[in-house]
Amino acid sequence: MIHLLAEARDLARETVEIEGADHRHLFRARRLKVGDRVRLVDGRGAARWSIVDQVTARRAVLRVEGAAPVFEPARRVALFVSAVRPERAAWLVEKATELGLRELRWFVSERTSRSLPERALERQRRVAKSALEQSGGSWLPKITAPVPLEEVEIGAGSVALHPGAATPFMVVAGSAEAVVVGPEGGFSEREIEELAARGAVTAHLGARVLRTETAAVAALAVALNGTS
Amino acid sequence: MIHLLAEARDLARETVEIEGADHRHLFRARRLKVGDRVRLVDGRGAARWSIVDQVTARRAVLRVEGAAPVFEPARRVALFVSAVRPERAAWLVEKATELGLRELRWFVSERTSRSLPERALERQRRVAKSALEQSGGSWLPKITAPVPLEEVEIGAGSVALHPGAATPFMVVAGSAEAVVVGPEGGFSEREIEELAARGAVTAHLGARVLRTETAAVAALAVALNGTS
Repeated sequence: MIHLLAEARDLARETVEIEGADHRHLFRARRLKVGDRVRLVDGRGAARWSIVDQVTARRAVLRVEGAAPVFEPARRVALFVSAVRPERAAWLVEKATELGLRELRWFVSERTSRSLPERALERQRRVAKSALEQSGGSWLPKITAPVPLEEVEIGAGSVALHPGAATPFMVVAGSAEAVVVGPEGGFSEREIEELAARGAVTAHLGARVLRTETAAVAALAVALNGTS
Repeated sequence: MIHLLAEARDLARETVEIEGADHRHLFRARRLKVGDRVRLVDGRGAARWSIVDQVTARRAVLRVEGAAPVFEPARRVALFVSAVRPERAAWLVEKATELGLRELRWFVSERTSRSLPERALERQRRVAKSALEQSGGSWLPKITAPVPLEEVEIGAGSVALHPGAATPFMVVAGSAEAVVVGPEGGFSEREIEELAARGAVTAHLGARVLRTETAAVAALAVALNGTS
């Protein structure tokens, strides 16, 4: 099954025009032909079938048909993550998007050692698009540039990963709406107090020190697949 | 805290000599000095403290002291995984080692599109060593070259990930001793029957199509952190 992320408004149209990178991917790499079926997803949880109607060297037309099945996790969980190196950030985006991430907000806290340039964020959005199309997902996670931790919407339903926490993550994973993942050096005691004051609970993912992106992907997997 | 993977026999000695890459890492990159403490792990679940006793340009001596704490998951889970591209394989090794992987056995099944050269396996073992030292783990996963699926020790306690399975992975994750992860194209029906005949149960990680290394890391995270 071939999946293509389209504009939400395209799913309401009778036909969709395909050009550029999508055209190259579908008609050169994947070699689709007139009559082949493409599942269009809108990045907001909806999907429709479409049929290849015309193909030329640089342009193609898909005829939009009825609703297609969606393959979404039962829950929506966001990740708020301390900025990491662009390469590791792109891995996190690919894996978390495949698993069904709702949203990714990068932040900078006391011990965060870097930010993420706009170039890196643009790459992450391309990675998210192809991870979504590869996995058959229909929800494209919003990815936002690093902001100070104070500006991230932490609230009840936020779980901050903290090695010193008394609660194993799995105990609170089922009710987690967002997982807050700090830098390698962890959150400062002051930050932990602030997070708690803003309504976040703290939990741990075992006794080992996990890299930021490892903790984020592991926590998302547990929140989406480790709870009923 | 600085962790160093040493030979098992070194932990029984009074002193350990450090040269080469470990010397560069500890005394150039990390800038350790005489009197500093290093936690030695043996890759088999044991750890001891040591103190830097002498440092020269190319060689150092650590004085081995008493038992150090270990940070291991409560359970040991192995991964049997269809060979993937070297870069994705190295990422899987890094993440799974941080999380506490017991063992990684690569395999080749009907739809596996590649093998892994010895060079890639050597890199994976270096990646595992640094992931272990970075995470504070004391168990180094054994990583073995791809063998035909038929030669992998599948048995009761093996859980094969299969999108068509009726059981969510979390239901069986708590008793999984090994997770069997197929290629992007999945296992063939014949392979699923064979796996079942050898005692494996099948389970799914949601409705999406996950890349091989994503499914492996997500399943390990759920097996180690998503079950009591």
